Amino acid sequence: MSKLLIVGTVAFDAIETPFGKTDKILGGAATFIGLAASQFEVDSSIVSVVGGDFPLSYLKMLNSKNIKTDGVEIVEEGKTFFWKGKYYNDMNTRDTLITELNVLGDFNPVVPDNFKDTDFLMLGNLHPTVQMEVIKQIPERPKLVVLDTMNFWMDNSWDELMEVIKKIDVITINDEEARQLSGQYSLVKAAKRIYEMGPKYVIIKKGEHGALLFHDDKIFFAPALPLEEVFDPTGAGDTFAGGFIGYLASTQDISFENMKRAIIYGSNLASFSVEKFGTRRMEDLSKKEVLDRLQDFKQLTQFEIDVK
Amino acid sequence: MSKLLIVGTVAFDAIETPFGKTDKILGGAATFIGLAASQFEVDSSIVSVVGGDFPLSYLKMLNSKNIKTDGVEIVEEGKTFFWKGKYYNDMNTRDTLITELNVLGDFNPVVPDNFKDTDFLMLGNLHPTVQMEVIKQIPERPKLVVLDTMNFWMDNSWDELMEVIKKIDVITINDEEARQLSGQYSLVKAAKRIYEMGPKYVIIKKGEHGALLFHDDKIFFAPALPLEEVFDPTGAGDTFAGGFIGYLASTQDISFENMKRAIIYGSNLASFSVEKFGTRRMEDLSKKEVLDRLQDFKQLTQFEIDVK
Repeated sequence: MSKLLIVGTVAFDAIETPFGKTDKILGGAATFIGLAASQFEVDSSIVSVVGGDFPLSYLKMLNSKNIKTDGVEIVEEGKTFFWKGKYYNDMNTRDTLITELNVLGDFNPVVPDNFKDTDFLMLGNLHPTVQMEVIKQIPERPKLVVLDTMNFWMDNSWDELMEVIKKIDVITINDEEARQLSGQYSLVKAAKRIYEMGPKYVIIKKGEHGALLFHDDKIFFAPALPLEEVFDPTGAGDTFAGGFIGYLASTQDISFENMKRAIIYGSNLASFSVEKFGTRRMEDLSKKEVLDRLQDFKQLTQFEIDVK
Repeated sequence: MSKLLIVGTVAFDAIETPFGKTDKILGGAATFIGLAASQFEVDSSIVSVVGGDFPLSYLKMLNSKNIKTDGVEIVEEGKTFFWKGKYYNDMNTRDTLITELNVLGDFNPVVPDNFKDTDFLMLGNLHPTVQMEVIKQIPERPKLVVLDTMNFWMDNSWDELMEVIKKIDVITINDEEARQLSGQYSLVKAAKRIYEMGPKYVIIKKGEHGALLFHDDKIFFAPALPLEEVFDPTGAGDTFAGGFIGYLASTQDISFENMKRAIIYGSNLASFSVEKFGTRRMEDLSKKEVLDRLQDFKQLTQFEIDVK
């Protein structure tokens, strides 16, 4: 079974959407990535940090999904990273109301010894310096390194981000971030420019408009599943990334053809994640539900045209 | 061979994009629809109106593509409908700089006798009263009626639009218009609400984000082909609609499975239309180019997942 190391936040989220609001609930990039990847046969472990206020029941829930959490440092006297946000009708725009870094402020990631030989490495959205720290602790290059990042680091830590980007295989960013990173408006041109920075694969996440996978001159597109209701989009991008790398790790096949399947699975899992607040839908999601929805994706995208 | 009647504007456009600008060139919804449909084996005819300033060479070009223009009234003392617009970097937002209705202002459409038994009817974006006038002149209901409309008519001619919408099979609108028409934010819910107004098929055009086809509980998605450059998006939606109905008319098959192929062809042709100013790319487009690009669409969307 492949090893998958996941670095990212484990956090409290408080969310307000047109459908309702929550108090502090379980959130964080690594949490969503791990839950998505747990749909596949992988040996996964999270590297993160939480405070003494973090309920052990959350870690136990992750463990029950075969996600190891011994790489999650618990700073007893500290408080867990907290994000509070509000979504509006279109669910594409959100306001951040509160960001309390807390223990994340001086996070020194430590890769557990038994994952220093990880086959797959998922660098969730974090300060590029933290991402680099993790890369440095892994002596032999993993089979595949996937990086998620965002405009904030492009604005504030460009040089550090460039150093990390050199070291990875796949980058996942949204369309605006791809434009910012590349200085190109056309996403086709943006991907080509980003190849030059290091990654051989560029995944551009477009939320409700799906995701594009670029490699050399090849492009593959996975739509988002049109839903009656998007209840809470928090974590959808991380769920997508977790489904992507989880599927690749479980199949141990990083060909472009298999990456197509992997982003379909990523989109599939993300379509569940948004159905309930926070991680709730992902916690009780069955393999049967995922396979059934795969049929919806096929019906949504597959066609037969005989060309004479 | 199926008959296809196309009602819509035949116009002058003046276009400014980040790549350049044009003087008055050939434009109009019916023009783009007709050129797209001419990629298929159909007997098509345009109903429209132009002024005495309209070059006969434009009509001859259309005729050379087997598009009949005897339904295009020429008002010798009048001037042709003129639109001038400017696009910005993202090509999704445009400003209308000039709209001169001219002869379109009191257009009374007359369906040529030999197309009163048309099999397929494409009602391009026009005043709903004009669209209804055409419907009334066709004694026996065509096999399929496709309507294109826009927010302007929803704002200004709601009741007339509702009367037309009752009479048609397929409506093509963009996502914002679908929301306005239905009062529903979710496009899935919007489509269901629109079914109740009359159409059994709803096509939601999302520009660079592709198009969705809704019918009963079925959904199909055709992406837009990611391009290095979108040179001029004018007419892309009409080209899409013309490809859709042209393919259906040539195959004489209005099953949902065939509609999937039809919107892939629509998206295919639209991806060419935007490569040059106005109708230029569509005028010299060969069937071979269209078939080659069909392979790009397959590579972009088709995947194999064996579900055990």
